[in-house]
Amino acid sequence: MTDKTSNQMWGGRFAAGPDAIMEAINASIGFDKRMAAQDIAGSRAHAAMLAATGIVSDSDANAMREGLLTVLSEIEGGTFEFSTALEDIHMNVEARLKDIIGEPAGRLHTGRSRNDQVATDFKLWVRDQLDAVAAALEALIRALLTQAEAGADWVMPGFTHLQVAQPVTWGHHMMAYVEMFGRDLSRIRDARARMNECPLGAAALAGTSFPIDREMTARDLGFDRPSANSLDAVSDRDFALEFLAAASISAMHLSRMAEELVIWSSAQFRFVMLSDRFSTGSSIMPQKKNPDAAELIRAKVGRIFGANVALMMVMKGLPLAYSKDMQEDKEQVFDAADNLMLALAAMEGMVKDMAANRPSLEVAAASGFSTATDLADWLVRVLDMPFRDAHHVTGSLVAMAEAKGCDLPDLSLEDMQSVHGEISVSVYDVLGVHNSVASRQSYGGTAPVRVREQIARWKERLG
Amino acid sequence: MTDKTSNQMWGGRFAAGPDAIMEAINASIGFDKRMAAQDIAGSRAHAAMLAATGIVSDSDANAMREGLLTVLSEIEGGTFEFSTALEDIHMNVEARLKDIIGEPAGRLHTGRSRNDQVATDFKLWVRDQLDAVAAALEALIRALLTQAEAGADWVMPGFTHLQVAQPVTWGHHMMAYVEMFGRDLSRIRDARARMNECPLGAAALAGTSFPIDREMTARDLGFDRPSANSLDAVSDRDFALEFLAAASISAMHLSRMAEELVIWSSAQFRFVMLSDRFSTGSSIMPQKKNPDAAELIRAKVGRIFGANVALMMVMKGLPLAYSKDMQEDKEQVFDAADNLMLALAAMEGMVKDMAANRPSLEVAAASGFSTATDLADWLVRVLDMPFRDAHHVTGSLVAMAEAKGCDLPDLSLEDMQSVHGEISVSVYDVLGVHNSVASRQSYGGTAPVRVREQIARWKERLG
Amino acid sequence: MTDKTSNQMWGGRFAAGPDAIMEAINASIGFDKRMAAQDIAGSRAHAAMLAATGIVSDSDANAMREGLLTVLSEIEGGTFEFSTALEDIHMNVEARLKDIIGEPAGRLHTGRSRNDQVATDFKLWVRDQLDAVAAALEALIRALLTQAEAGADWVMPGFTHLQVAQPVTWGHHMMAYVEMFGRDLSRIRDARARMNECPLGAAALAGTSFPIDREMTARDLGFDRPSANSLDAVSDRDFALEFLAAASISAMHLSRMAEELVIWSSAQFRFVMLSDRFSTGSSIMPQKKNPDAAELIRAKVGRIFGANVALMMVMKGLPLAYSKDMQEDKEQVFDAADNLMLALAAMEGMVKDMAANRPSLEVAAASGFSTATDLADWLVRVLDMPFRDAHHVTGSLVAMAEAKGCDLPDLSLEDMQSVHGEISVSVYDVLGVHNSVASRQSYGGTAPVRVREQIARWKERLG
Amino acid sequence: MTDKTSNQMWGGRFAAGPDAIMEAINASIGFDKRMAAQDIAGSRAHAAMLAATGIVSDSDANAMREGLLTVLSEIEGGTFEFSTALEDIHMNVEARLKDIIGEPAGRLHTGRSRNDQVATDFKLWVRDQLDAVAAALEALIRALLTQAEAGADWVMPGFTHLQVAQPVTWGHHMMAYVEMFGRDLSRIRDARARMNECPLGAAALAGTSFPIDREMTARDLGFDRPSANSLDAVSDRDFALEFLAAASISAMHLSRMAEELVIWSSAQFRFVMLSDRFSTGSSIMPQKKNPDAAELIRAKVGRIFGANVALMMVMKGLPLAYSKDMQEDKEQVFDAADNLMLALAAMEGMVKDMAANRPSLEVAAASGFSTATDLADWLVRVLDMPFRDAHHVTGSLVAMAEAKGCDLPDLSLEDMQSVHGEISVSVYDVLGVHNSVASRQSYGGTAPVRVREQIARWKERLG
Repeated sequence: MTDKTSNQMWGGRFAAGPDAIMEAINASIGFDKRMAAQDIAGSRAHAAMLAATGIVSDSDANAMREGLLTVLSEIEGGTFEFSTALEDIHMNVEARLKDIIGEPAGRLHTGRSRNDQVATDFKLWVRDQLDAVAAALEALIRALLTQAEAGADWVMPGFTHLQVAQPVTWGHHMMAYVEMFGRDLSRIRDARARMNECPLGAAALAGTSFPIDREMTARDLGFDRPSANSLDAVSDRDFALEFLAAASISAMHLSRMAEELVIWSSAQFRFVMLSDRFSTGSSIMPQKKNPDAAELIRAKVGRIFGANVALMMVMKGLPLAYSKDMQEDKEQVFDAADNLMLALAAMEGMVKDMAANRPSLEVAAASGFSTATDLADWLVRVLDMPFRDAHHVTGSLVAMAEAKGCDLPDLSLEDMQSVHGEISVSVYDVLGVHNSVASRQSYGGTAPVRVREQIARWKERLG
Repeated sequence: MTDKTSNQMWGGRFAAGPDAIMEAINASIGFDKRMAAQDIAGSRAHAAMLAATGIVSDSDANAMREGLLTVLSEIEGGTFEFSTALEDIHMNVEARLKDIIGEPAGRLHTGRSRNDQVATDFKLWVRDQLDAVAAALEALIRALLTQAEAGADWVMPGFTHLQVAQPVTWGHHMMAYVEMFGRDLSRIRDARARMNECPLGAAALAGTSFPIDREMTARDLGFDRPSANSLDAVSDRDFALEFLAAASISAMHLSRMAEELVIWSSAQFRFVMLSDRFSTGSSIMPQKKNPDAAELIRAKVGRIFGANVALMMVMKGLPLAYSKDMQEDKEQVFDAADNLMLALAAMEGMVKDMAANRPSLEVAAASGFSTATDLADWLVRVLDMPFRDAHHVTGSLVAMAEAKGCDLPDLSLEDMQSVHGEISVSVYDVLGVHNSVASRQSYGGTAPVRVREQIARWKERLG
Repeated sequence: MTDKTSNQMWGGRFAAGPDAIMEAINASIGFDKRMAAQDIAGSRAHAAMLAATGIVSDSDANAMREGLLTVLSEIEGGTFEFSTALEDIHMNVEARLKDIIGEPAGRLHTGRSRNDQVATDFKLWVRDQLDAVAAALEALIRALLTQAEAGADWVMPGFTHLQVAQPVTWGHHMMAYVEMFGRDLSRIRDARARMNECPLGAAALAGTSFPIDREMTARDLGFDRPSANSLDAVSDRDFALEFLAAASISAMHLSRMAEELVIWSSAQFRFVMLSDRFSTGSSIMPQKKNPDAAELIRAKVGRIFGANVALMMVMKGLPLAYSKDMQEDKEQVFDAADNLMLALAAMEGMVKDMAANRPSLEVAAASGFSTATDLADWLVRVLDMPFRDAHHVTGSLVAMAEAKGCDLPDLSLEDMQSVHGEISVSVYDVLGVHNSVASRQSYGGTAPVRVREQIARWKERLG
Repeated sequence: MTDKTSNQMWGGRFAAGPDAIMEAINASIGFDKRMAAQDIAGSRAHAAMLAATGIVSDSDANAMREGLLTVLSEIEGGTFEFSTALEDIHMNVEARLKDIIGEPAGRLHTGRSRNDQVATDFKLWVRDQLDAVAAALEALIRALLTQAEAGADWVMPGFTHLQVAQPVTWGHHMMAYVEMFGRDLSRIRDARARMNECPLGAAALAGTSFPIDREMTARDLGFDRPSANSLDAVSDRDFALEFLAAASISAMHLSRMAEELVIWSSAQFRFVMLSDRFSTGSSIMPQKKNPDAAELIRAKVGRIFGANVALMMVMKGLPLAYSKDMQEDKEQVFDAADNLMLALAAMEGMVKDMAANRPSLEVAAASGFSTATDLADWLVRVLDMPFRDAHHVTGSLVAMAEAKGCDLPDLSLEDMQSVHGEISVSVYDVLGVHNSVASRQSYGGTAPVRVREQIARWKERLG
């Protein structure tokens, strides 16, 4: 039993011996071509600056800038031939530029090196992803707001330890995730602001003796400023690590929501119906709907955080400045970014499509003496009992109801007064699940009025 | 061969069977007592608010607040007896309060629960750590600035791939770490701002029907505002994860600097002399100084990032709201915080004490034809050669020097002109290491003038 | 708001400046005293060997061996005073030995160093843990076998995607975990066999010129042989990493079972009743039982695997031979071992105590047309239909039953024949859940007869 | 600045809305086609068994088996058209089989499901990789043995804390890595033995009512036995995790050796010359050789262990049996396996090509009073001093040598006797580095005679 397919490929690659192994481990063009647009944008900005500072002539710079646009259109059009012998995207682009414009291409690399070039390209790529993730988070938040608005007063069980604790509202539960994804959004924005310094012009590691204008290239590429230390500029991968850390926390939030959707979709819960589009069926059991998308989303945190671990481990203990180890940065970030975007899009789609099962939610909300706390609070508020004593009285009443096989509102006033003589008829006002949720009007509480306030706040915030 | 000591302890704990096992796995007082000050501060703010809103009487609130101060002084004085049967710090404090003030103690828990209480305590603890880490980072940056200022113009080799690439200055190298720790500082401050919302009053998960004033407790405890969703408030551990992520990146930076110090302290490099205080010696080899502190700092990133992995994995896939899994949050954060503080303090101490070996650094800076790039840049700048052509000419000159067993500045002008006829005597101006570093005046470059600018900028920033 | 308690301690530790910091980061006695018994066992074996080879006199060796027993009894009796100034367990023990026996104590360190000594101690400690974990796994397996035996023929739903798929037996489900913990046991045993080589006598790193007998010390300490390369012997921490990796996989298995127990304990599932001993209640909701132990067990995989990550990261890129970084190995392994032992003991206790809710399980097993596959298989087996066609016919029948609001066995033969004319009355034999599970008699299948076979096989294997 | 290339692709994929998102997240054919050979081998064994047990006719089985060979040759020949609509490799193969052989194709899936099919395919794939990794480890060990044999008596410094400690031999140092990779080999073999149980026939999760012969398919596919519990068989991914854990430890060993090669290649160390084939040069600095391959190998542990983290996190807390989360298993294992194979091959190539710089090694070996321990041992052995006293005398002699600016062997006998009167001329026998290494003849020690013994032992073991 042999893995012929892969072995053949392997054999094919390595038959030629050490050179093939070195090429396989060393070349990055297989993945860094994803940064072609960024590489060309960086080179065009650099060329413009070289002309503005008189380091190259205007005509040479114009030739470079036009030639680079041609290269970009070839790449976008799929006609560009990538060469592994040329190792990476930078050399592939520069070599093609030389084909197109000749001698001036040799002047493009003045005052820079591959070390600052790759740092610039990669930062531009990560910055684009930060923007894309921010947009995806906003879209997901909007989908949650729509669910929350529809069900601001639908009651459902609030769980601790997966045991029914107190009734809450559907809208309140949706809004809990809005807070989480809202923090993700804030983290992404902070990361973007912090990383927005331009490495271009740091050159190999020491800066350059050419009179370059780093402010100009930074501005042209949308950076807030040039990075302040050239050694750090080519050694730094914090921006990638901070992206991965923020992406991992967001993926963790997705995993929690996905877990809830899987549990809520079970025959035992039936809290929610996922759409066919995000489920898979079975030709033999047509009623069965497997929540495949939710399960895959739940799993993505592993993949994304695995990438974070990988890059942290790569960076551990690396001396300054550039070491080749750092070439392992891109594939991790590419894979994590793709999978986070996919998981966010799938979750947004599922949230938009899903239908809460209101009757099931309401029945479940009332189970398990879920308003016992409301009773205890009534005793404190109306009878001025210390909270710990009120707990004790409530416990006796719950035990009585359990013995009678009924729920708390089903106990007669007489029953209640047999436990504590001062209980009055107004206690029944707090025992229904709707009364319960309506009463929790503390800031951030589950009362529909509070939930609607938060929905409004978020809508205004998103604009 | 048996681990008698630990087995006996184990046997002692578990001999009593399931109850002992449950106590061992369930109780948190063994570690959460570190949050005693935070717990008491939170309860005092809560008591004040209960009185201000009329939920409890002023006299009861005063009794609680005074009693809590007594408890705090007992804990700080070491006379408090912690009880495992009371499970956690909250119950330990409340039980003791009841001993001291009697019945009013039972009213303290009105309108809150252990879920929001522990979230508040832990946030206060983490916030204190964020402040402590920020201060430690600033102290380390100051130590680096002092080194940078002293050696703003000392030359040393700049490495890529641990191969000498170009000369840089000692000050420039120190400032690269200032940038790293400066980003850490910025990350810590962003984390603090994001997490500064108060969970208190979220109660078990749904908020409360008591007319509590969450703005008041938030303000009293130094929070910017109350958290906006009670389900999220008791389920959220983002603040702990973000602390761990930021701490891990900072520890990674420390590991890089520590690796350099270990390598620089080797007999082969001799770039730096660490002080005896942060080294260990050998009674038999008195000249030997093991860089133990640097090695231990290098290792801490494993421990700190291991804590990050642990808590990420704990949180993965947890349904809302509170689950007991989340009790695993504190020990990870405590251990990571202690070790980061220790590593920062040790690094600050080492940086203050260490002495650069200027002669070694200067000799090494000149090795390996480290000014070859300067020569190439001269060809571009003075003779207007395309950069790629200049590279080729420089390669020939280096090969010639290597064949002659000399360095680039040792080649005669005749030798040089034999490779390219237009080379003139001014080329020698760029071949010395001091000339080289002085010439790299691009923003962020290694020239002493640029390094001093950055030192000034950082001093102003730190105030 | 300040963490006064910890800050005071911190201040106390670091007030003295660099020396206090160095002591805090460098000394290991705070944790390595857990290896006291191993350290003394190693030293006693070394002393015996030194005498047997004539390197020290018999009387000196006897003095050492007796003195070491005295030290051990002081430590076990709690009267030993550990000194941080003496850094580690090795120096603490040796210094005390010198107090007790005088000059001969100075001969104990002949032909060894702290590097091989600590490796030996730690290996002995880890080996003890491997044995303890193996015993705990066996105990857990026995508890599962008891559950499996009692319920070899109780039916319950088998899930995929948390959707009911096919009926299985309780015994079969329990035995799935037996297989998992059985693999863990096998992994632990392999790790023990591989690590059982003795580092003692590797000395600092190069071996020694004394005519020591490494076979003798290896044998005395229960090792299979001395390790074969002295550089490797003092640099190797594979045994710790392999323990952590095996412990992590086992903890992952525990997390899966714990997740099931949490879900099964919910009001919506009610598949299992956990005992009070491993749950926590609520004074206010007496019916509520929070599965705290299960949740804490579920979380432990984070902590244990976090330790694995930590040590992997510490070891990454360390040059040979011993580096001080490696001192970070012990706390990770101690914590992971303690928590794995605790989680295994708690799971064993829960499994012993838990009661399956047979009626709930049986009702759930029949839901969701769970015998549709049995119907399809009947069509293939009896009517010789290709499997894919049988799937199609079954799908139509399930759709019919769903439309009628009944289950598959409730369809009349006429109904069935309206979909496929050849269906005969014998089809009803496969549609009940008991018939279904009884029929799955393939090796490893869910049929009670197969489950009992596996129980018997495991009982024999465990002896 | 926009990532047009990737955004366009993204847009293209998701423009169609939810269906495109679901396809992107759900389909596995993009990666699981790497298991085509394994899938077809499994199906062919299954078909043969179905005929042997009379479940299908011989002619149908023959048609299936022949048809499957045709499919395989189409895939290997590159003419097979994979369809994303068919989701995975199993459906792609079966659909094509139906095209080729018609109706009998529909009988192939009798008595199995995709759950056991994918587990079988993936196990076969992992087993192939375990064999491939074992072969690569053996090749690397052979390369190390060749280096060790050539330099069994070349002296070099043995380091602790990257400080010279004692002289060792080149052969001894190489053999330390042989021990590490030898343990890796042993771990891989244990993993292979443990995982070699066949899931096929576990069906969806409960086994099957068809009279299948699982022993037969297990045997045909090279498994030792069928797996013993069908629920476990489809839920288990231990084999993948154990592969990743073993691969990670091996990658950690590679990272340590790679770190040494990077340090040894520095201008400051010059211990080793790597071949051009595994280095990259610079057109401008022809003497410069960047150890790129070593750096990339050093980094691979991050990527491989990141995959381990990812899959551990995916599996955490998954209820039985199959959940879609588990589809995330393959890409992690594929990537880790590819990169481990690449790193092993590159390290083997580098070890074969590299040249030790014997003069540098010997000079460095003698530096730093590296034979001080030999002197102390001489005092113990010849003068019968306690080891701790001998340390003290040696310290004084080293201090004297340091003060005189000479090495230990350069001290006169008079000098020596001024510190301790009984020192005799024979002491000089132990002070040279060659004498030192020759004297360390304890088992596993650095003496050439011991190193050659170990080389011989390993050669015999590898056969």
